[in-house]
Amino acid sequence: MIIVMKPGCTPQDVEHVAQLVRDRGLKDQVIVGTDRTVVAAIGDERRVDMSAIESAPMVERLVPILAPYKVASREVRPQGSVIPIGRGVEIGGRRLTVIAGPCSVEDEVQIIRIAQSVKLAGAHALRGGAFKPRTNPYEFKGLGEEGLRLLAKARAETGLPIVTEVMSIDQVDLVAEYADVLQIGTRNMHNFNLLVAAGRTRKPVLLKRGWSATLNEFLLAAEYVMNEGNNMVILCERGIRTHETYVRNTLALGIIPAIKRESHLPILVDPSQGTGHAYMVPSMSRAAIAAGADGLLIEVHPDPEHALTDGAQSVTPSVFSQLMADVQSIGAAVGRTT
Amino acid sequence: MIIVMKPGCTPQDVEHVAQLVRDRGLKDQVIVGTDRTVVAAIGDERRVDMSAIESAPMVERLVPILAPYKVASREVRPQGSVIPIGRGVEIGGRRLTVIAGPCSVEDEVQIIRIAQSVKLAGAHALRGGAFKPRTNPYEFKGLGEEGLRLLAKARAETGLPIVTEVMSIDQVDLVAEYADVLQIGTRNMHNFNLLVAAGRTRKPVLLKRGWSATLNEFLLAAEYVMNEGNNMVILCERGIRTHETYVRNTLALGIIPAIKRESHLPILVDPSQGTGHAYMVPSMSRAAIAAGADGLLIEVHPDPEHALTDGAQSVTPSVFSQLMADVQSIGAAVGRTT
Amino acid sequence: MIIVMKPGCTPQDVEHVAQLVRDRGLKDQVIVGTDRTVVAAIGDERRVDMSAIESAPMVERLVPILAPYKVASREVRPQGSVIPIGRGVEIGGRRLTVIAGPCSVEDEVQIIRIAQSVKLAGAHALRGGAFKPRTNPYEFKGLGEEGLRLLAKARAETGLPIVTEVMSIDQVDLVAEYADVLQIGTRNMHNFNLLVAAGRTRKPVLLKRGWSATLNEFLLAAEYVMNEGNNMVILCERGIRTHETYVRNTLALGIIPAIKRESHLPILVDPSQGTGHAYMVPSMSRAAIAAGADGLLIEVHPDPEHALTDGAQSVTPSVFSQLMADVQSIGAAVGRTT
Amino acid sequence: MIIVMKPGCTPQDVEHVAQLVRDRGLKDQVIVGTDRTVVAAIGDERRVDMSAIESAPMVERLVPILAPYKVASREVRPQGSVIPIGRGVEIGGRRLTVIAGPCSVEDEVQIIRIAQSVKLAGAHALRGGAFKPRTNPYEFKGLGEEGLRLLAKARAETGLPIVTEVMSIDQVDLVAEYADVLQIGTRNMHNFNLLVAAGRTRKPVLLKRGWSATLNEFLLAAEYVMNEGNNMVILCERGIRTHETYVRNTLALGIIPAIKRESHLPILVDPSQGTGHAYMVPSMSRAAIAAGADGLLIEVHPDPEHALTDGAQSVTPSVFSQLMADVQSIGAAVGRTT
Repeated sequence: MIIVMKPGCTPQDVEHVAQLVRDRGLKDQVIVGTDRTVVAAIGDERRVDMSAIESAPMVERLVPILAPYKVASREVRPQGSVIPIGRGVEIGGRRLTVIAGPCSVEDEVQIIRIAQSVKLAGAHALRGGAFKPRTNPYEFKGLGEEGLRLLAKARAETGLPIVTEVMSIDQVDLVAEYADVLQIGTRNMHNFNLLVAAGRTRKPVLLKRGWSATLNEFLLAAEYVMNEGNNMVILCERGIRTHETYVRNTLALGIIPAIKRESHLPILVDPSQGTGHAYMVPSMSRAAIAAGADGLLIEVHPDPEHALTDGAQSVTPSVFSQLMADVQSIGAAVGRTT
Repeated sequence: MIIVMKPGCTPQDVEHVAQLVRDRGLKDQVIVGTDRTVVAAIGDERRVDMSAIESAPMVERLVPILAPYKVASREVRPQGSVIPIGRGVEIGGRRLTVIAGPCSVEDEVQIIRIAQSVKLAGAHALRGGAFKPRTNPYEFKGLGEEGLRLLAKARAETGLPIVTEVMSIDQVDLVAEYADVLQIGTRNMHNFNLLVAAGRTRKPVLLKRGWSATLNEFLLAAEYVMNEGNNMVILCERGIRTHETYVRNTLALGIIPAIKRESHLPILVDPSQGTGHAYMVPSMSRAAIAAGADGLLIEVHPDPEHALTDGAQSVTPSVFSQLMADVQSIGAAVGRTT
Repeated sequence: MIIVMKPGCTPQDVEHVAQLVRDRGLKDQVIVGTDRTVVAAIGDERRVDMSAIESAPMVERLVPILAPYKVASREVRPQGSVIPIGRGVEIGGRRLTVIAGPCSVEDEVQIIRIAQSVKLAGAHALRGGAFKPRTNPYEFKGLGEEGLRLLAKARAETGLPIVTEVMSIDQVDLVAEYADVLQIGTRNMHNFNLLVAAGRTRKPVLLKRGWSATLNEFLLAAEYVMNEGNNMVILCERGIRTHETYVRNTLALGIIPAIKRESHLPILVDPSQGTGHAYMVPSMSRAAIAAGADGLLIEVHPDPEHALTDGAQSVTPSVFSQLMADVQSIGAAVGRTT
Repeated sequence: MIIVMKPGCTPQDVEHVAQLVRDRGLKDQVIVGTDRTVVAAIGDERRVDMSAIESAPMVERLVPILAPYKVASREVRPQGSVIPIGRGVEIGGRRLTVIAGPCSVEDEVQIIRIAQSVKLAGAHALRGGAFKPRTNPYEFKGLGEEGLRLLAKARAETGLPIVTEVMSIDQVDLVAEYADVLQIGTRNMHNFNLLVAAGRTRKPVLLKRGWSATLNEFLLAAEYVMNEGNNMVILCERGIRTHETYVRNTLALGIIPAIKRESHLPILVDPSQGTGHAYMVPSMSRAAIAAGADGLLIEVHPDPEHALTDGAQSVTPSVFSQLMADVQSIGAAVGRTT
């Protein structure tokens, strides 16, 4: 942490700040510049709340030096993590992983039919919502446990591991009983109690980035899970809130090289949520793979205009099939297989 | 809902869309313009998911006409709601309500001392965190139930009703046992299970706007609570995420006249969270009251440079005392008392 | 500037960076922390482009310490600047300054009538566009020089100094011939050639913040003007681009205390542009004054539904008259007169 | 345009609005819904300023139906435009176009050396700034006309057409004399006088998206150029301002499929400006091509740590050479050649 003093500070002001640094168990070093004096706090600034020092007299501002995450940091595992999600599928290795399926599980025929068609097209896992977080309380919220049972049936039929969302701590055990991967959605990235509860299971956790989360916050959310002893965290970029209006969210693919530099965790991209429009999904899928993503999460529905949720951003099985072919070509160009 | 067709659409395309509208129980009306044909869907578009219609052939885009919220809407109660929060204090009437106290309850001496000093300065209720959502898992997370007990003591000492955060569904009963008002924080505005659980209590709910929430999403979150039979929702603006870097968040005071136009619910402003810097709190407090807010939520700490949390944005009791005098003057200028 | 080295850097890497610092005429100081080594560059980092040092091997990132602005800095003139704009009116003193008038000058009757009515209500200066920057090339772009002549007539009639926009370097002399204050709009805040040209006149410059400008960029734009010898710069907050949709822009009033802390320049607020909706203008005007703004820029039109430009955000003379009364009350509460 | 009336509006209110619509030369059609009455304005709403109608009594809000751009619209030229930029190079065809070179022209040796190395690596055109817009007025602003002369020399040496920025209307003739393509930068996307001046030349214009520009604004800026008779506009995405801090800008690649759907103009991507960090440039280059961009604009410098400008985001010739190989592979996977 660097503490920048205001111009005109006295030696007493500087010593007062240096003392606050020492009180927190860190060492201080004062640097007198031509325009500003700064106090460097040496030691692990992440163990203590340094921000209160901003309140000391003649402090202009604080500048953190260390990234706040630890166990998710690339330094911990420079070779990167590979997370097995069951049935021989893993995420983060040379092989790309595509998780596809409907936004919501609607009924048995629908989920089995989609599972078969995405498998045929080459998907590696099945997604489908049983518990649906809906901004609008008047809309369809999923089939609940019945949805989980139908997902399990689809897994039995196709052999695809299943990925499904858990919205609340009281659903964790139930969802973990059925799912191969627990998904934590955008709206819950900062639901710390849920992160902890997911961390106490022994299931991989697919963690979606919050709408307005910074890279630091995203990795700290991962650390909430990891600190409970569950290192199987898979990150997922799904678009952020910006001023743009031609998309539901702005897909920020720059986070892929940034995560690869900062963290050992694998990262997927969800271009369905990340754009909100089916017509953009193929090109953003290709872009994600080209940028270095470890895989994709894609919403597929055989009849999007009658989908109960997210019809506008779901692609049909035939579009998905072409998308998989593209992913294969692009993957090959960047040294990945499917 | 207005459905805009692409140029070159055929009568069959239009009829297909009209049929999708009728399938959802709404009436259709087709308007043929000079450049575009549109289909108007007449009826309550909020009961059904219309968005899937975007997937139909030759649909360019959908334009919602009705705001999605209902029971929070101003039309329901044009005179506005006044929410009693206990001990003779209410929010939304002519009298302004200032809720002040530390970010976190740290110990008995601290909370009693702050409670007394904010009461003396004219505060109407006491805030203080017992369960603290922390982005960084390595930081202080609050005293838990012990914190609640200390808040109750402070209430007993001062008569101030207490406002404290509930982070998780399993804390709702416990927090409701102690608190006069349940606070739902920014990070949980989209935690729908928590909103429902809070709605099932008979305690007023102070709902903070999410970092990137739109006005519609904010009011829909309120409706999650209200739909459980609890109409005592108090909104709170606390800053949004933008490109600005001289603040932790951008306080968006324009939401005050917008909420007053769209909803009957009262709205407070939290200039501590909403800026992140103590030096900005007095001016933003004055601005909030001048803009028409029903009150304030202010972080006060006697020794900010040693506060366990949020020291940088906490004002001292003496600054708070001056702030209350300013609030009184500004309030008088806009027809409000304190 | 603090240069943070990556973990694992060698003494050679550090010395290489230290040399790059010395090459730029600054002194280096190395601080070896527990987790990171940093190199402090001591001296005026604003004279040279330091950013290239990020390219050196094993550099993690650069952290600027000094704010980049100089002559606009509060340190230069701690008491604040007061800018005379002609005819006895000045901006930045104890007296608030309200500049009101139509978005565009439409014809003689219109501008004279509005000038008289805003003067009667207590405005201190007249605004009106003769050259209008329009996002849409098919819309009305102003009367040009004829508009300037009509503004001068309105000044002759009412004694109000006139504020009008200059869009382009080839208009500077012409506009300066008529106007008391040259306005540089949001879209041109980064038009550096125009800033320089305005700086070469001896007219006060009203500089609007760019849609996505940071505080640093805003003050650096002011310095472009000031570096030409023209210190009469008046800042104006007019809303930024965010994810919000109930407003055309998000008015970021927190910039007022920030500017008062960082700079000696006065700052106005434009709540018409800053919200885009007439119904919000009165409350945001009150909020701006309460927050410490030095005055307001308000769009007034007698018949907004027939205004050629910006009708949706123009208030009528009777609303403006009430707004002035409110400004007076709020101003009194914060120690300002009108 | 759809005009949504407030609940409780009278037939007189509706007729008043309908009259305002007719006054503007459009036809009105009233639709009475269950919750709202709306007035549809039929005709070309882009010819007149409709926004003033928001001021009429009982109007809730306006909803535009037509996109505001015309000549840039895909409907005008469904097959897409191909823009020749000289010396056999064109943008928008099956062949990808990579424009590479230094941020600034620094001296003859530098520009010739870079031109030769990027040509060798397969670049199709040379970029280099002679007039540099700098946020900070104290930094290097380019060599001016001398820079243009050096670019011309580099063209003579290599045969590469040259792309260089024009910042101001008084530079247009000079820059057009030397350059093959006039670049208009982010900060000037809304400098309408410059757009018009560039439109009056017969040189292709490379138009960068403004930091906070919407898609509509971007295409309207293109129309300012096209309305002067110059249809040779090449769009360029270069990142937008968001809350993200690990990048200088957030590269919004979703705009590529959106532009391909909405407009016939070609679109390039600048991953150097669009991220601000050299380490991200290769992956974002690959992503851009995979998403469907027509080419790239890349900053290349042989010695980034001594570059006069933008060193942090410049790649070395050897990185660029690998990047070109990647572009070729990815291009092949999406049916493009280099």
